[in-house]
Order: sequence, then C-alpha cells, then structure tokens
Amino acid sequence: MKDNLPEKKEREYIETGVPGFDKLFTHGIPKGSTVLVAGGTGSGKTNFCLQILAHHAAEGKKCYFMGFEESEERLIEHMEDFGWNPKELIKSGNLKIKRFLTSEIYYYDKKSGSDIQAMMTKEVDPLLMELEPLAISEETGFIPDFIILDSLSAVASTFIGKEQSYRFYVERLFRFFEKIGCTTFLITETKQIPELFSPTGVEEFLADGVLVFYNFRRENIRETAVEVIKMRGEKHQKKMVALKINDKGISVYPDVEVYGALEVK
Amino acid sequence: MKDNLPEKKEREYIETGVPGFDKLFTHGIPKGSTVLVAGGTGSGKTNFCLQILAHHAAEGKKCYFMGFEESEERLIEHMEDFGWNPKELIKSGNLKIKRFLTSEIYYYDKKSGSDIQAMMTKEVDPLLMELEPLAISEETGFIPDFIILDSLSAVASTFIGKEQSYRFYVERLFRFFEKIGCTTFLITETKQIPELFSPTGVEEFLADGVLVFYNFRRENIRETAVEVIKMRGEKHQKKMVALKINDKGISVYPDVEVYGALEVK
Amino acid sequence: MKDNLPEKKEREYIETGVPGFDKLFTHGIPKGSTVLVAGGTGSGKTNFCLQILAHHAAEGKKCYFMGFEESEERLIEHMEDFGWNPKELIKSGNLKIKRFLTSEIYYYDKKSGSDIQAMMTKEVDPLLMELEPLAISEETGFIPDFIILDSLSAVASTFIGKEQSYRFYVERLFRFFEKIGCTTFLITETKQIPELFSPTGVEEFLADGVLVFYNFRRENIRETAVEVIKMRGEKHQKKMVALKINDKGISVYPDVEVYGALEVK
Amino acid sequence: MKDNLPEKKEREYIETGVPGFDKLFTHGIPKGSTVLVAGGTGSGKTNFCLQILAHHAAEGKKCYFMGFEESEERLIEHMEDFGWNPKELIKSGNLKIKRFLTSEIYYYDKKSGSDIQAMMTKEVDPLLMELEPLAISEETGFIPDFIILDSLSAVASTFIGKEQSYRFYVERLFRFFEKIGCTTFLITETKQIPELFSPTGVEEFLADGVLVFYNFRRENIRETAVEVIKMRGEKHQKKMVALKINDKGISVYPDVEVYGALEVK
Amino acid sequence: MKDNLPEKKEREYIETGVPGFDKLFTHGIPKGSTVLVAGGTGSGKTNFCLQILAHHAAEGKKCYFMGFEESEERLIEHMEDFGWNPKELIKSGNLKIKRFLTSEIYYYDKKSGSDIQAMMTKEVDPLLMELEPLAISEETGFIPDFIILDSLSAVASTFIGKEQSYRFYVERLFRFFEKIGCTTFLITETKQIPELFSPTGVEEFLADGVLVFYNFRRENIRETAVEVIKMRGEKHQKKMVALKINDKGISVYPDVEVYGALEVK
Amino acid sequence: MKDNLPEKKEREYIETGVPGFDKLFTHGIPKGSTVLVAGGTGSGKTNFCLQILAHHAAEGKKCYFMGFEESEERLIEHMEDFGWNPKELIKSGNLKIKRFLTSEIYYYDKKSGSDIQAMMTKEVDPLLMELEPLAISEETGFIPDFIILDSLSAVASTFIGKEQSYRFYVERLFRFFEKIGCTTFLITETKQIPELFSPTGVEEFLADGVLVFYNFRRENIRETAVEVIKMRGEKHQKKMVALKINDKGISVYPDVEVYGALEVK
Repeated sequence: MKDNLPEKKEREYIETGVPGFDKLFTHGIPKGSTVLVAGGTGSGKTNFCLQILAHHAAEGKKCYFMGFEESEERLIEHMEDFGWNPKELIKSGNLKIKRFLTSEIYYYDKKSGSDIQAMMTKEVDPLLMELEPLAISEETGFIPDFIILDSLSAVASTFIGKEQSYRFYVERLFRFFEKIGCTTFLITETKQIPELFSPTGVEEFLADGVLVFYNFRRENIRETAVEVIKMRGEKHQKKMVALKINDKGISVYPDVEVYGALEVK
Repeated sequence: MKDNLPEKKEREYIETGVPGFDKLFTHGIPKGSTVLVAGGTGSGKTNFCLQILAHHAAEGKKCYFMGFEESEERLIEHMEDFGWNPKELIKSGNLKIKRFLTSEIYYYDKKSGSDIQAMMTKEVDPLLMELEPLAISEETGFIPDFIILDSLSAVASTFIGKEQSYRFYVERLFRFFEKIGCTTFLITETKQIPELFSPTGVEEFLADGVLVFYNFRRENIRETAVEVIKMRGEKHQKKMVALKINDKGISVYPDVEVYGALEVK
Repeated sequence: MKDNLPEKKEREYIETGVPGFDKLFTHGIPKGSTVLVAGGTGSGKTNFCLQILAHHAAEGKKCYFMGFEESEERLIEHMEDFGWNPKELIKSGNLKIKRFLTSEIYYYDKKSGSDIQAMMTKEVDPLLMELEPLAISEETGFIPDFIILDSLSAVASTFIGKEQSYRFYVERLFRFFEKIGCTTFLITETKQIPELFSPTGVEEFLADGVLVFYNFRRENIRETAVEVIKMRGEKHQKKMVALKINDKGISVYPDVEVYGALEVK
Repeated sequence: MKDNLPEKKEREYIETGVPGFDKLFTHGIPKGSTVLVAGGTGSGKTNFCLQILAHHAAEGKKCYFMGFEESEERLIEHMEDFGWNPKELIKSGNLKIKRFLTSEIYYYDKKSGSDIQAMMTKEVDPLLMELEPLAISEETGFIPDFIILDSLSAVASTFIGKEQSYRFYVERLFRFFEKIGCTTFLITETKQIPELFSPTGVEEFLADGVLVFYNFRRENIRETAVEVIKMRGEKHQKKMVALKINDKGISVYPDVEVYGALEVK
Repeated sequence: MKDNLPEKKEREYIETGVPGFDKLFTHGIPKGSTVLVAGGTGSGKTNFCLQILAHHAAEGKKCYFMGFEESEERLIEHMEDFGWNPKELIKSGNLKIKRFLTSEIYYYDKKSGSDIQAMMTKEVDPLLMELEPLAISEETGFIPDFIILDSLSAVASTFIGKEQSYRFYVERLFRFFEKIGCTTFLITETKQIPELFSPTGVEEFLADGVLVFYNFRRENIRETAVEVIKMRGEKHQKKMVALKINDKGISVYPDVEVYGALEVK
Repeated sequence: MKDNLPEKKEREYIETGVPGFDKLFTHGIPKGSTVLVAGGTGSGKTNFCLQILAHHAAEGKKCYFMGFEESEERLIEHMEDFGWNPKELIKSGNLKIKRFLTSEIYYYDKKSGSDIQAMMTKEVDPLLMELEPLAISEETGFIPDFIILDSLSAVASTFIGKEQSYRFYVERLFRFFEKIGCTTFLITETKQIPELFSPTGVEEFLADGVLVFYNFRRENIRETAVEVIKMRGEKHQKKMVALKINDKGISVYPDVEVYGALEVK
C-alpha cells in the first residue's frame, strides 16, 4: 500500500432507473461497484441489465453490453418492445452492444485484438497473466461508464478443466473492472433458487454486490422476485420483494414481500 | 454490430396446433425461436413435437424431424394412430423424418455428407469450428420452416469426456438455427421433475424458450402437465397446467392448474 | 427414410399371461416392443419375466432367457416351484435358458461365436461397430419371439470406464432387437424407489416401454407394486398397483392402488 | 445349458439356530444359498453369523469362518461369552476360524497357496480368471458346509481403482460358492440404514438372499432390528422385526414389528 | 517435548472491541489463538475483522490485514464510513493493510520476498517445506499482534489439484502463527448455512476457535447472526445470537437468541 | 490359527475416570480395545481423551498422547485448567505428550526413527509392509498402557490419492495396537452429526468400539452429548446422553437422555 493515502472522496451512487429497485438501498449502488446479477433461466436478469443501460445511455453515459447469448438484433428488438429506443441510443454513440462466441475467447490469443476482449484473452494465456491488462480507452475512444457481461458463466465455460487458470483469470478480471472505474454488472446463470450465486462460488466473494433474481414455483404458479444479498459500502433492505415485467420493462415492488413456503437458505 | 441497424419488423408468431397450448401466450411462440422441450420419459415431449409438425406440414410448411430414437416407421405409426396422415404429408414433400445413429455423428467427419448433419459434424471436428456452417438449403432444396431434434441429449452423448468441445458445439448449433431462421424445438431428456432443463444446464440459457413436460406421481397416480418457463420476446402464463393425450393427440388445459404437494423449485 | 412407405399394418399386442397385469393397458404391450423392467432387489422382476416366457413357450412361441445371475438349474427350480413345467418347455424346443459370464462378453471378441452374444461382442469392439449385426436366425435355427436379458445392468458393467462405447453399444443393441422384431424385456437393477430406470438414464428414452417394480418399506412392512411409466403406441393406466407372489407366480391387482407416504417423484 | 436336465431334487433348507429367526421363513433358508448379511457397525452381523456356525458345528457340520477384522482369539472369546464352546468345536475339527490380511490377498499371487484364498487370489490376477477355480476339498480334506466371509467389503477394498476387475472377480466368487454347494453368508459393511446392501450395489443382485441388520436411532435410543429383503426360492416375512442380544446370543422376535418414523426406502 | 516444561503463565485474553461480542465468553478469546471466521457472502465477516483491527490499532497494537479481495482503498473507505479513522492508524504505524493476488502466491517461489508471503511461498514449494519458516519480525520491524487473513479460501484456491500439498501447507501455516504468538483471524468463505467451516474441513480442527456468521433467509427476510462453535481453553455461550450492522460498525446482541425453523445441524 | 488355544482369561475392563461415563457399560471398556472417538469440532473429543490419560497416569499407568494438532504446551495448559497436574504426571514418567507434523510421517521413511512413528512409517512404504512392526517397548523403555492418537484423520490425510495404501496401512495399524495390548483411543474428525464415524468408513468396522460425541444445534442452542455405538465383548447403553464440561473436566449424565427433533440415522 502506498504511503500517500487518497483523500476521502464524497461517495457517489448510481440509480438503476428500474422503478422501485433503488428504494432497496439507502443511497443506491455505489458507483464503480462490480455486481453479480444471479438467477435462473427466465428470471429477468438480462432485461434488468438492459433497462439499466437504456436509462444511462439516455442520460449520456457510455454503456457497453457484452454478450454471448442473444444476437444484437434480438436484444434490440427486446429493447424496442419496451420502448427504450435502442437504435437512437446506438446512433448517439452511448450504447454499444456486441455479441461474442465463447470459442472466440478461447482461441483469441492466436489473433490480435484491441478491445476488452483482448484484455480477457491475455488472461487466458498464462504467459500473459503477469502483464497488467491494457486500458481499453486509449485505443477505442469508448470509455464505458457501465459494462454488462452476459454472462460470466459463459466466460467460465471456456475454462472447463482449467480451474486454476480460471481462478486467477477471474481475479484479474475483477481488478480490471476496478481499475477502469466503471460500474459493472456480471450476469451469472444459476439454478432457480441458487445455493451458489456464481460459477464457482468464489466470484460472489470477489464481487462488491450480489443481486439474486428468483423465478420459483409455489405449487403451480411461478413468481418472480429480487433480493440484494450484499452491497459493500451501502446499507440495503434484507428481504425478497416482488418483481414484475410489464410493457415498459421491469418494476420492483420494495414493499411487497414475497412470503411463502420457501425453505431457509 | 453493424452500423446499419435492421428496420423493425412486425413480429410474427407461430401457432402450435396443439389445442389449448397457444392460450398460454399472449400471441404465441415468436417465429424463429429455438425452444427446449424438456421432460422425463413418458411425459409426451415427442408427441407434442410431432403434433406441431403435422399441423404445419398440413398447412404447407416445410417440417423436418431429426431423431435418434424411434424408427421412421414407428413415428409414422404413432402419427397414424392420431389420424395425422403422415404418409400424405411425406409424399407432399412437406414432412421429412429421418433417424440417425449417434455413432454416425461421432464418426461422421471421416465421411462426406450434405445435410444438416454435415453441418453438425463440422462442429465436432475442432479444426472445422472456425468455418461458418453451410446453409442446408442450396444443396437439398429443402429449407425447413420447422426443425425438431429428438434429442439434444443424444447429440450431447457423443461428446462424453469432451465437455469443452460440446460447449462450443452447442453454441454454434444455436447460432446455426438462428441463421437459417427456422423455428426449432430441441427435445431434452431430464428427470421427471427436472432441476436442469438441458444436458449441461447451459442450453437453457442459450435457448429462446423453455417448455417443461411433467410426468409426476402424486401418491399412486401419475399426472402429466406442461409449463412455459421462459419465452423471449413474448408474455406467457406462469403456471403448470394439465396435459392429456387422447385419440386425436395432446390437448392442454390452460385453465386447469395442477395443484399439489409439489415442493418449491 | 425410404420413399416407399410401408403399408399400415394392423397393430398386434402381446398378453403377458400375468394375471391382472394386462388390464393396465387398453390392448396390451405392442408386439415387437423393447421394454425395460426396472426395480430393486427382491422386487419380482425376474419372476415376472420368467412367467411371461412360460406363458408364451407353452403356446408355442420361441422364448430365450439370457442371464448373468442365477444358474440355469436354479431358474428351472423356480419355474418348477410355480408349476410352470420348464423342463417340458425346454424339451419342446420353445424355451431356451442360458447363463453367461460378464467376463465372457468382455473377452469374447478374441474368440469366435455364432449367437446373439457374438452380435453383442462385435459391438464391444469399436472396429466392428460399423457392421450390421448378424441375424441370429440363420445359424441357429432358433428365431426368438421373446427375449429376456437379465440384466442390462450386467452388460453395462462390462463397459466400466468406457462410457462412450457403452452409449453407442446400447443404441445398436436396441436397433438389433428392433430389426429382428422380437418382443424384448430388459431387466435393469435399480434402487428400491428408482430415480433412474436404467444404468445410465439413457436407456429409458430408447426403450419403447418402461415398467417399474417397487419393493418399498412403509414403516416396518415391505410392499410390492408395479407401475407402467410409458408404453409407446398404447394407452395405459397411470398408477402404482399392488403385486403379490403366490404359489402360481405373480398376480397384479390393477384396482388395488398403493397409496401412502411416498413422496412425489 | 445341457440337454440332460437334472431331476428335481427335494428342496432342503437350513435352520440358523438363532431363536425366532427361522420363523421369518416358510421353510428356512434354502441349503446352498449365498446370502448377504448387510448392516452398519454394531448391528450384530458378526454375532449372527458366529451363532449359525456354532449351531451347525455342534451338529457335526463343517463350518469355516474367514475374517479380516477381529483376531481368532477375540472371536473365540465372544463365542465363549455366549457359552458356545468354540474350543471344543475347533478341536472336533468342525469349526475353523482364520483371519487374513487384505494385503495378503492383494499380494498373494506372488506366493503359492492351497486354500480358498488361493482360489480368490487367482481371480485377482486377470490372467488366471479364465481358469476354473480349484475345489478346496481335495487338498485340505475340509469341505465346508457353511462359509462365513467377514467381510465382502474387505475383499472389495483390495480392488480400489480396479472396478472392472472386481466386477468380474465377484461374479466368479459367487459361482465358486455355487459350485461347491456350501451355504455361504457374506457380511457387507453398510451405513446404519443402507440404501445399497453391498460394496457396489451389484452383489445384492447376484446373491440368493439379502438380510439387513439395522442399528438405528429413534430420537436418543438405538434399536436393533432385522429384515429379510429377498430369499430366492422361498417365501418370507416382509417386515422389520426386533432383534436383541442377551447372554446366550442373538434372539429375533418375529412378531415384534419395529414401527416408527422411518422414512420410506 | 522438552524436559523443561514452561511455567504456567497467567492466561491472557483479548477483547474484540465489538459491542456485545465478548459477552459470549467468560473471559474472552485467549491471546495467541488462531480463529476461523466462517460465513457466506454478506454475513459481515470482513467488517467484524476490520473492527477488531481498528480497536486494537487505536490502543497501540500492531495490526496486519492481509487480503485477496477488496482494494486497500475500498477497505479504508469502509473503515471511514464507520468512523474508525483508518488513515491515522496507518500513519501511526499500527495498522497495515495489504492486498495480494492469489497468482502472486502461486508464482512467488520464482521471486524473492521478505514478508509473511515469503513464508507462505516457501511452503508452496515442497523442497522448502522442511525449512522452518522465517520469522517476519527481524526483517520488517513490524511484529504483528493481530493478523487477519481475508481469506484462507483464497489461499486454498492456489492449490487446486494439489490437495496433499495444501494439507501440509496449512499445517505449517497454523504452526507459524502459533510460533510468532500473534492472535490470528482467518476468514473462510462458506455457504450461508455451512456444514463445513473451512475450505477442506480440516482447518476447523487445527484452529483454536471457530466463529460462524450466518446470513440466512427466514421466509422473505434475511437475518444475520453469529455463533461460537469452539474456543479452546475458554468457556463460551453455545447459542446463535443476533448481529446487526449500524453506523458505528457491528454490534452483537448476546441475549437475543435467533430462534426459528433452522434444521438441526 | 494355532492348535494351542489360549486359556480363557478373566476379562479385564478399564475405567475412564470420566464421571458418569462408565455407567453406560455393564463392566466398562474391555482392556486392550481399540476405540474410535468420533465427533465434530468443539464436541469435546480431545478433552475426553486427555481426562482418561490424566486419570490413569495418576494411577501409575503409562500413557502416551500422540497428536498432530495442538502444541504440547497448549495441551498441558488445558490439563492445568482442569486441575489435572500434567507437569507432575510428565515428570513421574507416566505421561508422555508428543506432537507430530503430518509431513513428518509422510517423509519419514527417508529418515531413521525408533518409536511408534517409525512403525507407522514403515507401513507407508509399501516395501516395508511385509515386515512385522517393531515393538516399541524394547528401544524406549516406555510401554504404553494407553495410547491416544489425535487424530486418525490427520494420519489419513497423508495418504491423499493413495487409498489402497491407506486401507492396508490402517489394517496394520489396528493389528499393531492389538499386538502390544494397549488400550487405544483413536480420535476421528467428523461432521457434527456424522453418518460415517471414521475417515473412510472402514475403520469403524475394524475398531472394537465406537464412541460418538455430538455438538448439535437445536434451534439456536448447541448441546453436547455422547453415545456408545458399539463395544465388542461388552454390553452397553444404547442411548444418546448429555455431556457437560465444567471446571473439573467432562461429566456424562447417563440418565439424562437427549431427546429432540433429531432425524433417524
């Protein structure tokens, strides 16, 4: 640790733009946090993240969606369905959506590249792990304020059988996000009622925050809910509350607690 | 992502032709979706898919059933039992049923081939993974509007001990279906009350939709039911409803909720 | 699939000869089906199969019992205990009982052979997997109408550590039974209340039918019961009903439902 | 199977000499059976087997206890505690007790030997598996009517990492016992309430009979009980009944059913 | 053991400075203990440890926080949020906070180093395991009274696939802490309701004390609680009591027992 | 087995010196038994064993504590806390406490040694497994009447990845204790409510006795209890009774049965 301790900055918080969600916090999610967005299939994780990006891109922030699953066209369609004007945001230069192949990451070290993925790839090659990741800003001119990674599980899948490498890689990835100072949401794919919130269980300890999206069956009906498990440096509600998707996107109901037969976990 | 964003198309939806089933959606399954059809043995997955094909082939759509389990003759017999006239549909050129051996896929890269399987096989060979899959239309003249794969689990079984290859393969397979624009139903074989809806748990995040067919025992009686877990770009009922098989095929009862002692999952 | 579709044959069904059992079906088990007979130790699987053989051999059908467990002498003794006259049936040439060693199958490819086992053995050797299995009829003059394999679990045990080979092998084995057109009962050894009905969970999707024999403890008493999980091409009761063994063999009580504290599975 | 079918012999049954136990059967355990004696530590398995040996050795039968756990001296002490006069039985030549080291079995093929263990050892060496095991009688002059193996679990432990060999070995072992015609009790070490009754779950399908000894806790009290899971060729009670150890040895109370909160298994 | 037995010292205990926590003990945590601090994400483990350090650094003790997760800046921010004046404590030389990369530990044996990490690294290299770890005091002049390791789980992750090495390593690590006489808190990352309190289950037997922090859901509300599982050489309350985080840090409520539906574990 | 059977000796029993504990037996633990002392962390296993040693060393017996966890100094402190005068006992030559490193055992075969550990080490080297272990008495002049091994789990940890060797080793270890005739208590580290009582589940069948120490949570309170699972050659209470630690050490309350919601196991 350096001798020159930084001056205490006034803490800044971000608003998600998701109605009701920010009321789960005293101030909001601390700016610059790395937050896991965990949940099962169909629980609304991706929509939640797109909604955050649309909100901030509309306010002039630089927003980058890095995905491995749906095509750019489909994601744009979903955003149009909710009336978020994704094409305008993209034209304005504030929103960038890009889909990757996991195999591209895996093979990428044999090629050259100049964006965040290049940084990632270096980590994949153990020889490059000693090197400090390149900052992405200088080369592309696009310094993201917000990054969505959909999903960290997809990244982890390129390390099948190389658990030690993944462990080191994910640590470097978290530090990279910390270094560039952006607020990051990392989607993780879990069971519907997860016991682990991340691919190996380690990422949830490295992350600053953990949000869990539930899509569980109570007898024959599925309900959706959201819960803040942790958020470093900020106080938050400790309850599972209702989440609904309507024509405008996701709304959270911080006062509608989801009771039920859920076992203690 | 390209600069020229596509114009917003009017969204199209397909009807399944299964009585009652489409009422679980506001419009229907979005055309071009890739949908997992998950369930245990005897839960009605294959019949459900054959019923969709019969419905659409009768309306002039091109329908392709790719299987690994029952023989073409048996499948035709089942369709005849329900009065779906499979032989006429086949003669009309609208319905195509073909059974493969999993070992054919496994060994296939040593041979030449010119259909979807060839595309698959390329993926099996890591050297070919960089190549864009061939479109199937030009060579065969048969451009499917609907594809059934019975089952994705059988395909996965040819990758035993090669999890990394399967992960890359399945991603390419999903993108291939996306590219040719057909609506695809991928059957996955699960436990009777599944926790995972797909061979590795990853496919359910890649898929646009997930349908689960249940065949569970309540005390000494088995009941069958169906549930839509997710459907991207479309609103759907979030409940488990009754499914029955009668002389005409499967019927779904969207208002008959299946209550019971089922644990929350 | 060939262009010349076969004419629709009138569907044929077999009777098991087990009192009460056939009432679980509208017509019976479709002739030519491959049926898993799953259950724990002491649940009556082997007796059930012997009873079917005795019934059909007495009616002039060719019946072949291929086992790995009890000796021919013991099996004959059991049949005599029930008054099924096995020795007469054997002398008539209608009943054949043969026990194998699993190690014979494992080593068999080093030898020559001319019966079903030879067919099996070819599959064990990956080099022979491309070859179409030999029909057994021409060489032995014994074309079975019914085959019992006791057990598929024993066959699977010869593939320990070779899961990929077993997967291919079992697919070929099912197709062989399909090809010769016999009705086949494959015994699988499971837990007393099975979650999987077969050695790897795959066989139950390949099979046309699945029967489960239960031997469960309700407090301090063991009860036996049977359930039809699936039967392709035929409607069946979906309940667990009582099964008893008396001096004449097994009887099933299709109207005696076995209620109880059994959990939903 | 040979053409000359053996004449039907009058079935013979053995009495165990354990008060109350034989009432669980219509006649008794069929002579020549191979019976698993399964249970957790402290459930009375070894005492039960010693009691059978003492009973039959006193009646002039040849009895052989092959163990891997307690010393000969300790086993004799236990028998003396119950007043079974083991030293007289040994002197009479009817009772033989021998303890082995599992490592002796493992290494034994490097040495010469002339008893049952030699037979076992041959099986360990895959080269010898083709050979028919030697009958033990000619060389030692001691043809056992009863053999106890304490325990099959100890034998299995010498095959750690060689599952395929064990599978073949255990099949040969069962056939050896079948060939020499003795009645055999194979102790297996399980959990207190076992789901599997044998080291790999396969042995219980090969065995003619399975007895389970329970030592379970109901709230703060441990109770012991016994249950016959199966016995080929003989009818038996299907309930869990009380077992007590007193100054004379084990007594079973066939009319005292052990009820309780035991879950269905 | 040496012949000269040490004189009995008056036992010394430390206060944690966490309101309410020390009332769980008769005297307190024995000075020089090595204590596991186990819990799931968001359960307050790190805050608890920082609070102890702040308390003792303010009283002139030497305190060393060795972490792998949050940056020094973030940790300082958290401490400032609670008003603990971390920058003053650091300037006074009593508080030292340092973050490591797990990959540094892994690769560290290729470099030279002179602090605790060097000691650790030696253990990683099996060749160095025979050597007595270097005391850290002479080289750095900073002899810690308190060490926090956040987390032992991160250290364990550098031994993936080398379980034997980790087992030896962790034993040496515990002895090193014992030798330098400091009081050590080792954070371990567990499930929310842990069955194991440490990465391999072994560490909890080596440690002198085990504290468990719970963050469990009772229906839709999360509650936090703490429990002392063991503390060698000291009597302690054996109950799970409430823990709250407020503006000043953590408070424990030794008289507020957390009842509920928690299963016995 | 030798022809000269030993004369029946009057059975001898030991008292543990732990108030209340011996009332769980008719006579006591048979002298020369090898007893597992199983339990989770904080359940009182080590204190129980130290209390036995202190009792017998004070009565002139030779007592040897072989540990891998706490230092000699700490163990002596604990004994002093209870007023057991460990330093006097050590000076008298009746009590010997020695701590080992697991890595010493692992590497020990490269060195020379002359105590029990040397015996152990020989077993580790497969070449030495044929040799009869050396008796420890002649070389050291210290023939233990009682040995504590804290813990067998630590010994087992040196065999990670060498399960076959451990299986043979542990068998030899038990026979060694049997040969020298001492009464031995082997501590095993388990879960709080163990299903297995030993590292691999085999040791509990080799041991003459098994004691289980419980430290379980009933809602928010931890309770401690002890149960005798088995004791060869002796009758014992079959219930779980209360155990408390006070200023004088452990007391057992044989009439205070610990009831509760504990599941049947």
